Amino acid sequence: MEKAAIYHQPFSSYAYGYDSQTLHIKIRSQRDDIQEVVLIAADPYLQTDSGWASEETALRKVASTEEHDYWFVAVKPEQRRLQYGFVLTDTAGEDVFYGGRGFYENTPANRAIMDYYFKFPFLHDTEVFKAPEWVKETIWYQIFPERFDNGNPSLSPANVLPWGSKDPDRDDFFGGDIQGIINHLDYLVELGINGIYLTPVFEASTNHKYDTLNYFEIDPHFGDKETFRKLVREAHKRGVKIMLDAVFNHIGDKSPEWQDVLKNGEKSKFVDWFHIRSFPVTPGENGNVEGKNTLSFDTFAYTMHMPKLNTANPDVQKYLLDIATYWVREFDIDGWRLDVANEVDHAFWKQFNKAVRSEKEDIYILGEIWHDSWLWLLGDEFDSVMNYPFTQTIIENFVEERIKPTKMVSGISEQLMRYQEQVNHVMFNMLDSHDTARLLTRCEGDKEKAKLALAFMFAHTGSPCIYYGTEIGMDGADDPLCRKCMEWDEANQDKDMLTFMKKLIAFRKTNQKVLTYGNLDWHIVDDEKHIVAFSRTLDGKCLTFIFNQSDVARTVLKADVAITEEVRNAWTNEVAGNLDIPAKSFVILEG
Amino acid sequence: MEKAAIYHQPFSSYAYGYDSQTLHIKIRSQRDDIQEVVLIAADPYLQTDSGWASEETALRKVASTEEHDYWFVAVKPEQRRLQYGFVLTDTAGEDVFYGGRGFYENTPANRAIMDYYFKFPFLHDTEVFKAPEWVKETIWYQIFPERFDNGNPSLSPANVLPWGSKDPDRDDFFGGDIQGIINHLDYLVELGINGIYLTPVFEASTNHKYDTLNYFEIDPHFGDKETFRKLVREAHKRGVKIMLDAVFNHIGDKSPEWQDVLKNGEKSKFVDWFHIRSFPVTPGENGNVEGKNTLSFDTFAYTMHMPKLNTANPDVQKYLLDIATYWVREFDIDGWRLDVANEVDHAFWKQFNKAVRSEKEDIYILGEIWHDSWLWLLGDEFDSVMNYPFTQTIIENFVEERIKPTKMVSGISEQLMRYQEQVNHVMFNMLDSHDTARLLTRCEGDKEKAKLALAFMFAHTGSPCIYYGTEIGMDGADDPLCRKCMEWDEANQDKDMLTFMKKLIAFRKTNQKVLTYGNLDWHIVDDEKHIVAFSRTLDGKCLTFIFNQSDVARTVLKADVAITEEVRNAWTNEVAGNLDIPAKSFVILEG
Repeated sequence: MEKAAIYHQPFSSYAYGYDSQTLHIKIRSQRDDIQEVVLIAADPYLQTDSGWASEETALRKVASTEEHDYWFVAVKPEQRRLQYGFVLTDTAGEDVFYGGRGFYENTPANRAIMDYYFKFPFLHDTEVFKAPEWVKETIWYQIFPERFDNGNPSLSPANVLPWGSKDPDRDDFFGGDIQGIINHLDYLVELGINGIYLTPVFEASTNHKYDTLNYFEIDPHFGDKETFRKLVREAHKRGVKIMLDAVFNHIGDKSPEWQDVLKNGEKSKFVDWFHIRSFPVTPGENGNVEGKNTLSFDTFAYTMHMPKLNTANPDVQKYLLDIATYWVREFDIDGWRLDVANEVDHAFWKQFNKAVRSEKEDIYILGEIWHDSWLWLLGDEFDSVMNYPFTQTIIENFVEERIKPTKMVSGISEQLMRYQEQVNHVMFNMLDSHDTARLLTRCEGDKEKAKLALAFMFAHTGSPCIYYGTEIGMDGADDPLCRKCMEWDEANQDKDMLTFMKKLIAFRKTNQKVLTYGNLDWHIVDDEKHIVAFSRTLDGKCLTFIFNQSDVARTVLKADVAITEEVRNAWTNEVAGNLDIPAKSFVILEG
Repeated sequence: MEKAAIYHQPFSSYAYGYDSQTLHIKIRSQRDDIQEVVLIAADPYLQTDSGWASEETALRKVASTEEHDYWFVAVKPEQRRLQYGFVLTDTAGEDVFYGGRGFYENTPANRAIMDYYFKFPFLHDTEVFKAPEWVKETIWYQIFPERFDNGNPSLSPANVLPWGSKDPDRDDFFGGDIQGIINHLDYLVELGINGIYLTPVFEASTNHKYDTLNYFEIDPHFGDKETFRKLVREAHKRGVKIMLDAVFNHIGDKSPEWQDVLKNGEKSKFVDWFHIRSFPVTPGENGNVEGKNTLSFDTFAYTMHMPKLNTANPDVQKYLLDIATYWVREFDIDGWRLDVANEVDHAFWKQFNKAVRSEKEDIYILGEIWHDSWLWLLGDEFDSVMNYPFTQTIIENFVEERIKPTKMVSGISEQLMRYQEQVNHVMFNMLDSHDTARLLTRCEGDKEKAKLALAFMFAHTGSPCIYYGTEIGMDGADDPLCRKCMEWDEANQDKDMLTFMKKLIAFRKTNQKVLTYGNLDWHIVDDEKHIVAFSRTLDGKCLTFIFNQSDVARTVLKADVAITEEVRNAWTNEVAGNLDIPAKSFVILEG
């Protein structure tokens, strides 16, 4: 037995409250090393004449990665307290007891020592991670407002360029605004989406508005508060949620606060709003000169236009929390996406959570974090993060073909095991955004590849997000090219792609429950034939997905995807006969 | 290479801020599998023309357990942001890259992918765990007030028994009080201790006072507020700190709040102060009848005299926080020990931390948790916990001889690796308490064994605590026998033990810095000969400890304990010649 590979950590994604009655317990072992894991558990104080009254329950293997198997069990301790240990038996029949003090021989004497067990001291309902229900039913659509539509040309900046007249350069303006979004709400509803994520809309000098100048005003080139209020009202009327982007890590250098520091130096009343190391604070562009830092103050990256805010300062906290609650209270927005969320301190986000939750209980709090985010996802900070590790592993296999299906499946399993199950249900899944090249460009124009990747993403738990224009086949390399003007000329829209996306969105909505909560079982992960097949199962309903990434048609045996009876092709709505999967395509079976 | 055993977790004891400039990074591998670990790291945004400007630093192997090696490095990122990965090379020369997305071939191409790295997004000074400095210099002395001394017989309960007239039964009273402690402060100072931890002193009906009736009053059999104020003043005058016991998980059933619930049932205004499942709430003794729960409300364990408080209720929070701050503000106490801390919710403890810290910045917050406590020790809840896993592993080897030295050393190493280094510095280390049998009894009266275990504990980082009477050779089995009256008749005190303890305490104080911060290196862990030898090293100062647990004298070679020059016996203050260690004894070498 490879004991060194066995891992369990109390008070983590390996042991957490799933709801007010239920604990989830997981343990990890070396892949294919262990044949059985049994939980020995009960209330720690539950003594009878014959000793501690523990019970035994087998764990189920729920995921495997390249290196590990993950085992899982859900238990409902009557007193909401649990003392527990594991007995692991390897494939050779050797067994061992594993608990809070490590490994011991699996003897009655050792199992009787209370001190050798793990503890889950008390399941507090207030500590259970709870995400807003509506997010599980949401298909997001991300809009970069300056490039969606120019609905009110009178607001456009003086140097505005004709809509779509060229590929965008970094500092171009095309006049997109909030009225432009309102004008297309019916288009979005017809597409099927029911949540809009807007990159920043507050007053700022750039086209992306990440350099906020005034968080209490809509950027005048985008519109005004009344127009924004109308957007929210019209969206809600159509069952569409609105999420705004909160840029709280840093502020724009043109903001009055930073300008005051530039002007008054050490005497500025805003000195403690920032992280300043020495005076004078000299303005500039880039603090990174050939790998050497030249900054005398902290910024986002080395961008001197974006001085970092000191969120440990109570004045800054109050200022930002006022903003956060203002837009919820006054405009009824449904979510906040938090920019560069990982570089802001946890204490601030805990306050943020409390403040906005008390304005609107089911608000969605989404952190922009590209890496492992477990510490932000314990229930008192964020509901979710942008699921880039999931994105990347799909891209690397389906799009870039840099890794094999096996590695992708390993990555996805790892990512699912990283967080509490409730977190996975509301993960923000996307394949591209304003911060990456567009999917179609990463596919080098191969639309069938893009469709496969999108369908694959939609088959997994979490809320999928479509970046504006993906549905009509827009392309674009890294920023600024991923921020082209939305194509509204139907003659230039890819109608085939639009039909596909509408169908995919409708499919997701029809099957939302099984795609959110369903067990995930991998049936085929074939690196040679480039076939991946898996099923999602819930309450007797089973959807089986087969993806053929190769350039040739493949036939799959029903037995290999655990199908024994007649099934329906849930995508074409036909009876599925032989499982022949054309090149670069997928089937979805139900039955 | 056993990749399945390799473990690193960002935002945990594997990656944390040590101070406002320094990050600590750790990684775990299978024991003896890896020969070299190198960190590749830099600011994530630090780009030069040739790509990401990373640097390489080797990690040092700092601990080994039965199954694992632990590797460590401290880094000081200029911008307080770090992107990092590891290159591990096994003993066969095979290497691999390991980062936030798992294992990849160690190629320049893979190492150039920013997404494959771990991130430490920003080192916030406010998130660095900081414990009170004075705790590192403290030798604690735990007093169970009812059994220390009867300084004011007029306060004693009616049924008081003559001091030490018998072994205590569960409900006996012997009249110990606060004046009794004041009377012996000079004794304690002469012993050398400089911190007193008192089990509860607030009004309650039992002798142990864990069933609080009124948190705002000193128990009338113990004294009054003026006497308590005098105790704190007299202790402080002598450089001795005072820590009180806060029982916030539950309240006594005789408290007005619970009595109101019993009387008024569902109509009681205190209904939401507790966790009540159904009415009527019937009083009783024990809710656990032959392994079956018969309670209609939550309690501490199944003790119906101790109904559990609902710390999610803002009224309860306010009530408890008022208590917590009152005794700090009005009486200047130096620490709070939190009873059954693990069964109270984290949100409450975070509030508690803020509230008492704002009264007294360097207050010590100590949780009673017997198991892995990492989630309480991130800096915003507790400073430390009662280090029972450390206790137990020493007891199991030195005292009970149930495990071999190898297993003990493994357990100690595991425990040290569990927490941030700053936490280890202020761990509350003890070998017995009012909740366990006394050390000498566990040693079956073998005083030399007890001395070895005590000296061993004093050699490790953390603040040692002596349970009252250990210094004069008191014994006693499990509660109630571990709560005997303190022996004040010098004729019945073990003077040899007292001399030993004074010497040990003085030694610890003289060498406090090296014993707190010094590197720990194990030189001999010999299960056959029962020899354990290790050194603590800091800034060129080195103390080497050799413990001979066997019944025969042993000779140790200087080379085996890494001594090359002449050394002094720091315990006897003689030049150390041959390293002959008599049976059941130890030497301490300096040089």
